[in-house]
Amino acid sequence: MALPAQFATRMSRMKASEIRELLKLLDQPGMLSFAGGIPDAAFFPAEAFAGAFQDALSPGRQAQSLQYSVSEGYLPLRQWIVSHMARLGVTCRPENVLITSGSQQALDYLGKLFLSPGDTALVGWPTYLGALAAFNAYEPRYDRLRVGENRSHAEYASAAEAAGGRVKFAYLSPDFDNPTGLTLTPAERLQVLDTAAALDCAVIEDAAYQGLRYDGDPVQPLLALEQAQKAGDLEACRTIYCGTFSKTLSPGLRVGWVVASTPVISQLVLMKQAADLHSPTLNQIAIHQVADALFDPHTAALREAYRSRRDAMLAALQDHMPPGVSWTRPEGGMFIWVTLPEGLNAAALLERALAEEKVAFVPGQAFFADGSGENTLRLSFSNSQEAEIAEGMTRLGRILTSAN
Amino acid sequence: MALPAQFATRMSRMKASEIRELLKLLDQPGMLSFAGGIPDAAFFPAEAFAGAFQDALSPGRQAQSLQYSVSEGYLPLRQWIVSHMARLGVTCRPENVLITSGSQQALDYLGKLFLSPGDTALVGWPTYLGALAAFNAYEPRYDRLRVGENRSHAEYASAAEAAGGRVKFAYLSPDFDNPTGLTLTPAERLQVLDTAAALDCAVIEDAAYQGLRYDGDPVQPLLALEQAQKAGDLEACRTIYCGTFSKTLSPGLRVGWVVASTPVISQLVLMKQAADLHSPTLNQIAIHQVADALFDPHTAALREAYRSRRDAMLAALQDHMPPGVSWTRPEGGMFIWVTLPEGLNAAALLERALAEEKVAFVPGQAFFADGSGENTLRLSFSNSQEAEIAEGMTRLGRILTSAN
Repeated sequence: MALPAQFATRMSRMKASEIRELLKLLDQPGMLSFAGGIPDAAFFPAEAFAGAFQDALSPGRQAQSLQYSVSEGYLPLRQWIVSHMARLGVTCRPENVLITSGSQQALDYLGKLFLSPGDTALVGWPTYLGALAAFNAYEPRYDRLRVGENRSHAEYASAAEAAGGRVKFAYLSPDFDNPTGLTLTPAERLQVLDTAAALDCAVIEDAAYQGLRYDGDPVQPLLALEQAQKAGDLEACRTIYCGTFSKTLSPGLRVGWVVASTPVISQLVLMKQAADLHSPTLNQIAIHQVADALFDPHTAALREAYRSRRDAMLAALQDHMPPGVSWTRPEGGMFIWVTLPEGLNAAALLERALAEEKVAFVPGQAFFADGSGENTLRLSFSNSQEAEIAEGMTRLGRILTSAN
Repeated sequence: MALPAQFATRMSRMKASEIRELLKLLDQPGMLSFAGGIPDAAFFPAEAFAGAFQDALSPGRQAQSLQYSVSEGYLPLRQWIVSHMARLGVTCRPENVLITSGSQQALDYLGKLFLSPGDTALVGWPTYLGALAAFNAYEPRYDRLRVGENRSHAEYASAAEAAGGRVKFAYLSPDFDNPTGLTLTPAERLQVLDTAAALDCAVIEDAAYQGLRYDGDPVQPLLALEQAQKAGDLEACRTIYCGTFSKTLSPGLRVGWVVASTPVISQLVLMKQAADLHSPTLNQIAIHQVADALFDPHTAALREAYRSRRDAMLAALQDHMPPGVSWTRPEGGMFIWVTLPEGLNAAALLERALAEEKVAFVPGQAFFADGSGENTLRLSFSNSQEAEIAEGMTRLGRILTSAN
């Protein structure tokens, strides 16, 4: 039995697995990795979770916590998210919230909801490679979402039509973007909303890192800005907000959420019911208890810790990068994006870095829908201590200096 | 922004949500429901789970249990499944196992893997409505899988071609089928394998109820029969086995698995990585600990309890059904399938049953891909005590007697 040919095509642009192969080398002793964009497990509120799971499994509660539940998600958690969103400037009701298995699942479902083969998705150049992986299964065409550049809406639309489809959504992570670390200004966010309105397409706002701001002024989510434009009417909004507890409380529990107008949520609920029935009941109950008890102080401590690591990485880059190398200065999140001189290939450099210096990063090319970006790379500072960061940037500097 | 038109089509055959609306009436006091196909929460091994979660969250283990993990699933759990499958007659390795978020997720992924719009899926008439819901998103055509009937392979193939696609798989639940409760004989299983071989298509074996046999001799899974045909070579097998802990340990934790040849598993792993990264780490660790400690004695006790309920329902049906009503006598699982006299409409009867007798069931029509089966209904005996079953069948008998 041959696997269907069309599936091979759908998967051909998935580079995450190739990267993972390479990253298996990371288990070598002495390796310093700035590759994985993962939280530091030392900061997980494990004790609080132990208590929450114990409570949820105490006598009399198993009939809820271990049983099937509704596809929309655990109501008290959706209510908590309603309050959380209110603090970000979004007014919504539990009917506007769907609990997903991480925000990755939201991206998969939104691809499934909107994309037919040949439709266009507007994405950053670069963008989150997991978003490309999720969308690829639905065989879209990608076009570059240009923010702050002079590109007419008609150009997007006619290019999409020429490819045999329509622009179905713009996808972006406006706060401390993965991989660039960059944040869009309010004006840039409004420009994205204008573009989407002109194209009558959705906006997928990936807010994975939203809670991890280390300095600078918070910027309202696109969904809040759009809701304000529409006199507070969430039902009139085209923005679909994807949040997650993965970067703040625990990624391993796989709990995220979507906030959108009820027609979108209703479709996603049907989709989730058909695709995995619901996210684990117990995990939602435990996340709710822990979020309710300590979200604010926990994330404040987290920001403090990650801020020091970001600062350590920025200082070490300043000290060790050779001339011609530039990098972003993110106000939050987990990533710094490095641009090497033209002509250097980060994937080739990675092989040398692993072998000669035992230091790892992610070559930037994987984040570009068109395969460009050879001379870029992503560094994560979230999962390394300050001393490791200093030593790691020293090693990276040696490799780059010898490559120049 | 209008939601894409093609999506409305994809969802139009999803009846599960309509049924759910109706079932919201079930919260009325005094209602006896035989509708939901859910395990009795009183039997969940809650204490064992409380211990397992506590262990997994004990100091030093959070770095594993709350962190991101691999898409394939937790290795010790995959190893446990390898042993479990060996006892069912299937020889496999951990590389042949993918952990999914319930077997529902496996059905979604397999639809995504195999189906392009217009392709044909062979299913039972009736079949599990959640399978239809999962596959519908990929816009297949359905054809009736006829087991024990005289239908040539060429007929399946030419009908599929006429519809613009190919037969991509046969889907079936060979043990105590949902909704019929019926079990395929070894000869019938071999016939399905022959049909699939002639059509060069996959076989999706949904083994959700496999562990719940109350009497009669166990029948080997299709995957075991096929592996025997192929001299033990799992890599040559077209059968894809979908298992779950939902009916034995807990549905709310959402842990299931797929066993198949490595090319199929590799594709599904890529798909899972793109769709939700991985199933919750902690849940997999806890399920492994509980399964390892008590799967056999726990499922033995469960079979004992459910057997009594099945027997109670069969006896009560015998006592209370009017002439012209027939039903299946399942050797396991959770369901009895009832056929009413031609011309009766089970959906209309349900409205009367809820209003007049406070008794609930699922009208059978939802389980037919062609919308037939108006005069059928599904009863679940798993979540009701014997006295409730006796009273419920008395009520149902009254409604059916007055309807005749």
